[in-house]
Amino acid sequence: MVRAFIYDKGSGLKETENTDEMIEVFAEQRKIMWVDIDRPSDEEARILDDGFHFHPLAVEDCLHDLQRPKLDNYEGYFFAVMHAVVAADKRVRVRAGEFDMFASQRYVVTFHKDELKFVNATMDVYRKNPALFEKGTDFIVYNLMDALVDEYFPLLDDIDERLNRIEGRIFKKPDQSVLNDLFKLRRGITRIRRMISPQRDIVNLMLRHDFEYMSDESRAYFMDVYDHLMRLFDMADLYHDMISTSMDAYLSSVSNSMNSVMKVLTVITTIMMPLSVITGIYGMNFEYMPELKWRYGYLWAWGLMAASVAAMVIYIRRKHWL
Amino acid sequence: MVRAFIYDKGSGLKETENTDEMIEVFAEQRKIMWVDIDRPSDEEARILDDGFHFHPLAVEDCLHDLQRPKLDNYEGYFFAVMHAVVAADKRVRVRAGEFDMFASQRYVVTFHKDELKFVNATMDVYRKNPALFEKGTDFIVYNLMDALVDEYFPLLDDIDERLNRIEGRIFKKPDQSVLNDLFKLRRGITRIRRMISPQRDIVNLMLRHDFEYMSDESRAYFMDVYDHLMRLFDMADLYHDMISTSMDAYLSSVSNSMNSVMKVLTVITTIMMPLSVITGIYGMNFEYMPELKWRYGYLWAWGLMAASVAAMVIYIRRKHWL
Amino acid sequence: MVRAFIYDKGSGLKETENTDEMIEVFAEQRKIMWVDIDRPSDEEARILDDGFHFHPLAVEDCLHDLQRPKLDNYEGYFFAVMHAVVAADKRVRVRAGEFDMFASQRYVVTFHKDELKFVNATMDVYRKNPALFEKGTDFIVYNLMDALVDEYFPLLDDIDERLNRIEGRIFKKPDQSVLNDLFKLRRGITRIRRMISPQRDIVNLMLRHDFEYMSDESRAYFMDVYDHLMRLFDMADLYHDMISTSMDAYLSSVSNSMNSVMKVLTVITTIMMPLSVITGIYGMNFEYMPELKWRYGYLWAWGLMAASVAAMVIYIRRKHWL
Amino acid sequence: MVRAFIYDKGSGLKETENTDEMIEVFAEQRKIMWVDIDRPSDEEARILDDGFHFHPLAVEDCLHDLQRPKLDNYEGYFFAVMHAVVAADKRVRVRAGEFDMFASQRYVVTFHKDELKFVNATMDVYRKNPALFEKGTDFIVYNLMDALVDEYFPLLDDIDERLNRIEGRIFKKPDQSVLNDLFKLRRGITRIRRMISPQRDIVNLMLRHDFEYMSDESRAYFMDVYDHLMRLFDMADLYHDMISTSMDAYLSSVSNSMNSVMKVLTVITTIMMPLSVITGIYGMNFEYMPELKWRYGYLWAWGLMAASVAAMVIYIRRKHWL
Amino acid sequence: MVRAFIYDKGSGLKETENTDEMIEVFAEQRKIMWVDIDRPSDEEARILDDGFHFHPLAVEDCLHDLQRPKLDNYEGYFFAVMHAVVAADKRVRVRAGEFDMFASQRYVVTFHKDELKFVNATMDVYRKNPALFEKGTDFIVYNLMDALVDEYFPLLDDIDERLNRIEGRIFKKPDQSVLNDLFKLRRGITRIRRMISPQRDIVNLMLRHDFEYMSDESRAYFMDVYDHLMRLFDMADLYHDMISTSMDAYLSSVSNSMNSVMKVLTVITTIMMPLSVITGIYGMNFEYMPELKWRYGYLWAWGLMAASVAAMVIYIRRKHWL
Ligand SMILES: [Mg+2]
Ligand SMILES: [Mg+2]
Ligand SMILES: [Mg+2]
Ligand SMILES: [Mg+2]
Ligand SMILES: [Mg+2]
Ligand SMILES: [Mg+2]
Ligand SMILES: [Mg+2]
Ligand SMILES: [Mg+2]
Ligand SMILES: [Mg+2]
Ligand SMILES: [Mg+2]
Ligand SMILES: [Mg+2]
Ligand SMILES: [Mg+2]
Ligand SMILES: [Mg+2]
Ligand SMILES: [Mg+2]
Ligand SMILES: [Mg+2]
Ligand SMILES: [Mg+2]
Ligand SMILES: [Mg+2]
Ligand SMILES: [Mg+2]
Ligand SMILES: [Mg+2]
Ligand SMILES: [Mg+2]
Ligand SMILES: [Mg+2]
Ligand SMILES: [Mg+2]
Ligand SMILES: [Mg+2]
Ligand SMILES: [Mg+2]
Ligand SMILES: [Mg+2]
Ligand SMILES: [Mg+2]
Ligand SMILES: [Mg+2]
Ligand SMILES: [Mg+2]
Ligand SMILES: [Mg+2]
Ligand SMILES: [Mg+2]
Ligand SMILES: [Mg+2]
Repeated sequence: MVRAFIYDKGSGLKETENTDEMIEVFAEQRKIMWVDIDRPSDEEARILDDGFHFHPLAVEDCLHDLQRPKLDNYEGYFFAVMHAVVAADKRVRVRAGEFDMFASQRYVVTFHKDELKFVNATMDVYRKNPALFEKGTDFIVYNLMDALVDEYFPLLDDIDERLNRIEGRIFKKPDQSVLNDLFKLRRGITRIRRMISPQRDIVNLMLRHDFEYMSDESRAYFMDVYDHLMRLFDMADLYHDMISTSMDAYLSSVSNSMNSVMKVLTVITTIMMPLSVITGIYGMNFEYMPELKWRYGYLWAWGLMAASVAAMVIYIRRKHWL
Repeated sequence: MVRAFIYDKGSGLKETENTDEMIEVFAEQRKIMWVDIDRPSDEEARILDDGFHFHPLAVEDCLHDLQRPKLDNYEGYFFAVMHAVVAADKRVRVRAGEFDMFASQRYVVTFHKDELKFVNATMDVYRKNPALFEKGTDFIVYNLMDALVDEYFPLLDDIDERLNRIEGRIFKKPDQSVLNDLFKLRRGITRIRRMISPQRDIVNLMLRHDFEYMSDESRAYFMDVYDHLMRLFDMADLYHDMISTSMDAYLSSVSNSMNSVMKVLTVITTIMMPLSVITGIYGMNFEYMPELKWRYGYLWAWGLMAASVAAMVIYIRRKHWL
Repeated sequence: MVRAFIYDKGSGLKETENTDEMIEVFAEQRKIMWVDIDRPSDEEARILDDGFHFHPLAVEDCLHDLQRPKLDNYEGYFFAVMHAVVAADKRVRVRAGEFDMFASQRYVVTFHKDELKFVNATMDVYRKNPALFEKGTDFIVYNLMDALVDEYFPLLDDIDERLNRIEGRIFKKPDQSVLNDLFKLRRGITRIRRMISPQRDIVNLMLRHDFEYMSDESRAYFMDVYDHLMRLFDMADLYHDMISTSMDAYLSSVSNSMNSVMKVLTVITTIMMPLSVITGIYGMNFEYMPELKWRYGYLWAWGLMAASVAAMVIYIRRKHWL
Repeated sequence: MVRAFIYDKGSGLKETENTDEMIEVFAEQRKIMWVDIDRPSDEEARILDDGFHFHPLAVEDCLHDLQRPKLDNYEGYFFAVMHAVVAADKRVRVRAGEFDMFASQRYVVTFHKDELKFVNATMDVYRKNPALFEKGTDFIVYNLMDALVDEYFPLLDDIDERLNRIEGRIFKKPDQSVLNDLFKLRRGITRIRRMISPQRDIVNLMLRHDFEYMSDESRAYFMDVYDHLMRLFDMADLYHDMISTSMDAYLSSVSNSMNSVMKVLTVITTIMMPLSVITGIYGMNFEYMPELKWRYGYLWAWGLMAASVAAMVIYIRRKHWL
Repeated sequence: MVRAFIYDKGSGLKETENTDEMIEVFAEQRKIMWVDIDRPSDEEARILDDGFHFHPLAVEDCLHDLQRPKLDNYEGYFFAVMHAVVAADKRVRVRAGEFDMFASQRYVVTFHKDELKFVNATMDVYRKNPALFEKGTDFIVYNLMDALVDEYFPLLDDIDERLNRIEGRIFKKPDQSVLNDLFKLRRGITRIRRMISPQRDIVNLMLRHDFEYMSDESRAYFMDVYDHLMRLFDMADLYHDMISTSMDAYLSSVSNSMNSVMKVLTVITTIMMPLSVITGIYGMNFEYMPELKWRYGYLWAWGLMAASVAAMVIYIRRKHWL
């Protein structure tokens, strides 16, 4: 689907799906226009080339899947690739969707192969308040990027919550499943950090004073987007650290538990084995075994056993095992 | 609560809670004024917007919870977000409180949603010695930041003390609880480092020669705040290292202990099991077992057992297990 | 083999293997020429020296095996060393082949000791569409580098696929062979990262505005090669992280498994050993053992055994081992 | 104690403890003076303030304990904080002492709360050869810093020696005490690195061409101090690496030893347990056990046992455990 | 030994050991001279001071042992310290020898306390082809550095070979000695990296355009030395990574082996212990034990044992231990 908002101070906002009209407005460069190319057919996508004559490399980036986020300057416009959150399933596997923007002082062309809610929401804002177009195309770009970035926060809040639940489980009943959950969270966080990091670079490039498409007034707004990205990055870093700490805590608790299990095993064996040998000796069937006939033989055996237990308990005490 | 100090060389210091007067003084820009907005109601907070007309993004940062520490330049004033220590419980969980400052050459506006003792203390200093206002608004900012930063030191001293106690326990009676305490300390330190790090960047930005709100005389004072932040960071780093070393020490002592437990188990088993088998053999009930009837059968069995023990002890000695 | 494309707007494309002609065209500097020196004999290689008089150090780099990728500026031309993928066996052992380029505004000389498919492919492109020579020698260099870089992608896709298969095995039936496969993948990834990293630096140097052999129009194309290299690097990084995570997951699952095995051993031993001792006691052959003659002796022994089992089970339950 | 050297080309060197005279010479700025304030009383320390009127922040840094090493520029003089080695006990716990310097073209004021031998040694050098004062105050500063830095070398040589002794012990008779010694060394090295690192930054700042108190001739000398600091840092780094390697070597040897102990335990158990069961079977007291009455029963039991041992030995051999 | 080459276009090359002549030529600054001071006596070394009047700090660096590699600029000449490979024993313990150079446009003075083959080899090159002196002193410096750097390659090739042999042993018969060899290699590599790293910095400084002793023509040659150092560094890095991977592989194989040993132990114990208890029960000597008299008692006992084994085997199967 290809939709456009065409705005002109005199005639106000006009919404159209007529691509010929868009191409014409694009050529004239007199009105402000925002074209959104949403999950286009192959034919609809051709407008980038044939209608707007964008650079073939930029068009290629749009059509190919999941480019790296970046900012390219072409003559008369810039081209930005961003990654939007499309969906996140239970295993914290974020699915990223590419969101491409071409923008000059007069137009913004957005291109995306996934349905992106934040684009529709931003369109509604402009539909309800067309005067916003007076603030320039950079303000449209700001609104889109701000909305795109804001969709990362619920993801990180979700990770925070999961992490808290897992931490509780480590100290109560640790088992392999806790660790598996931590590994999954670690992977999710790694992916999110990799998505955020280049987008921060993009906003940073836009904030440089040699970026010509940015008015001084707008710069403060992009600075705010930058703040949000920094905070996302900080959060991701913090959760990454917390996951590492939780893993170390889990593994050391396993190691401790094994140590104490081994001690019990050793204590039991150390005490019982000599008893086994003593009873074994007096269970032998030799004809000539003086102790067997002795009046106090049985008591003697009990004495031996008691002495052996006592010796072993003293030994173990000295080793501080129990 | 909204309070203001209004100072003028001629008429001296005046303290007021009348917001209309503040707005008027703010507009005139002739007297020096410090407005402190302390845990404001929604209505009181509106003075940022309606009274002082600060940039909506800065006002939004004030009203939203726990922004990242940062320094923004707006036309005619700067806006700084700092993190103050509000409280630290027994688990070394620091609670941070946002502390926001707007400042120009003529005014300082501070905004915080938590009760912050260091703000009241700084107000007292100025109340007692109004001549300090002659030193300019940058000196007010310095006093606030210096006091804010100084509150981090007791936190780190507390961690130092805990760490020393834990180190003693590792070498005496190590158990899982030592490790849990170390994990908690590690988390606390991580959080503090993350709080200090961006504040250091802020002071660094203020020290740059293109920061217009700083007199040359004040620069030495902010340099001093910077020193304190560097020292905090050094301390946090050092404690982080010490915690890692302590953890490694603990885990290696667990591993060593397990190794020596295993050796004892193996030694006991190695010596006792062959004895068990020997006594088992002569405990069998076959009718035709020549040794049983033999005069020296019992002695022979003892001889076998002694030989077996001797062989095993020699073997173990060679392995250096005991 | 030494082949050359000689292009001139008037006379069109001419393909030749006559080295004298190449040297002549090289000296005149009027036509555009691309010389490809493919697996040359020692004699053929001498054209670099005797025919084109390139700097002896650059010629030495060509003749020696596997230089580091780099970009050197000489007077009137630049010299670039790249690493192409020649082959990758089952153990993900990439074999790199050196690919050397000398280029000025009028000529490109490529040199390689391995058969490189992407060079032939690029030659075909130019053979079919000689007008491409009008775009300049930098566009030839771009086409070669783009094709060279594109050959890394299948390598990384292969690693991705292997990694997915391994991850499945970790959770199903983990054994040493999983780990060995992970170690092999890690090595492969390490090697690829080391190959990509300096090539990224080369393209970066070419993109700098003081690199004289690059037209503004071509810069966008080299930017695209740079994007691909960045993406390769990101992928390699991501797979490296994923391998580390998988290794940690495997090792922790081994550790967990050992822990649970140890618990079973300890439980069995703890329950059975006291029974062994009890039966041993009543298996002794003393003449005077009152219990043996007692009417309920056998029942008493069973009672003792039941009590012992019960006590041990309670103990184990308290330890949460089962 | 407050001592001063006052030097003048005409009248030569004069040594005094009269503070009034120092203050007078300080005010005149015509003679070269070096004031050393050595473990001062509170009253003696007041000369910094009342006599020389140094900036209150610098004076505060002198009076407070253990500032971070740093270099501050004030109007007309610079202020440097260095850390000198005061003492190092057997646990390689270095005690650092603060050493403060104020210096301009005409004077050097040194301040320290610990007795520092290198200061006295440097004073002796100047006392014996007063002509050195002709070389300027920067040469005094150089001599002090050079002597201060040289005191770190014996510390690192001591660590080197300890490390060598420990490495010998790891391969001979490794036990927990080796590891504890390594942990102590690691802590000592960490502390020294943290002391050296900021001092290197200070010398680096002094070497910058905008540092006005440095003559071109002196720069080579400070470069030499810088070399020494770099070498100290290299040594500390190397020892840190060596300690890590030694720790890893120790831990892996523990792990190996445990593995071989476990194998012996398993071998013994695997061979002996079936024998125990066989003897147990023929030790049962059933009235109807045909084997017991059989002529070759006892031989049969021995045969069974031999077969069991043989089977187990073959099994173990296949596992390569012995 | 002090030797010199004195070259003059008119009179050609003259070789001398007469130090007075060297000092004279040094003073005149008209001929090109290379003085090599090879394992000098204390008296011979004095020529640096008394004959050539080099800066005392540089002379001190020559006389003291094993300075850090560095490049110092003095008035009229530069001074470089390099580290040459003197010897490498079987434990890959590289012995470094200091190699010092003083050079201006007219002279090169080299100083070394070890016999260095590459110096003699370079002297031979110049002896055979005196016209090389026309290329200037920087070309002498290049030839020395190139030869010095080339001696590192056999060291790294040796490490490569050892590493390949060790990797084979890990998968065949891993034991503690493999690990010890890896630790030794790791130490050797660490030492080599530390030697190469500052030398790379030196060449980098020489390549800077403000280094006055370098002609444009020579720059390409030093660039080549830089390439070699970069390649050495890359190789050292790669081997370091490979050693880490091999260590991890070894340790994880130990951990795996322990796990499987433990499983066998547990399986044997789990199956055999209940049998021991059963035979123990029927080995008791109570007078009233109904089973003993029972016709099918023995069969019953066998049945019990078979059932116990079956139960245990099923249990173990479910745990996937065998
Ligand atoms: Mg795309
Ligand atoms: Mg936002
Ligand atoms: Mg928003
Ligand atoms: Mg991932
Ligand atoms: Mg904001
Ligand atoms: Mg916002
Ligand atoms: Mg670890
Ligand atoms: Mg706020
Ligand atoms: Mg302070
Ligand atoms: Mg203070
Ligand atoms: Mg201070
Ligand atoms: Mg202070
Ligand atoms: Mg080559
Ligand atoms: Mg490509
Ligand atoms: Mg392509
Ligand atoms: Mg490799
Ligand atoms: Mg692209
Ligand atoms: Mg492409
Ligand atoms: Mg481990
Ligand atoms: Mg002090
Ligand atoms: Mg020194
Ligand atoms: Mg010295
Ligand atoms: Mg320490
Ligand atoms: Mg020196
Ligand atoms: Mg020295
Ligand atoms: Mg030397
Ligand atoms: Mg070389
Ligand atoms: Mg060479
Ligand atoms: Mg080369
Ligand atoms: Mg070469
Ligand atoms: Mg490890």
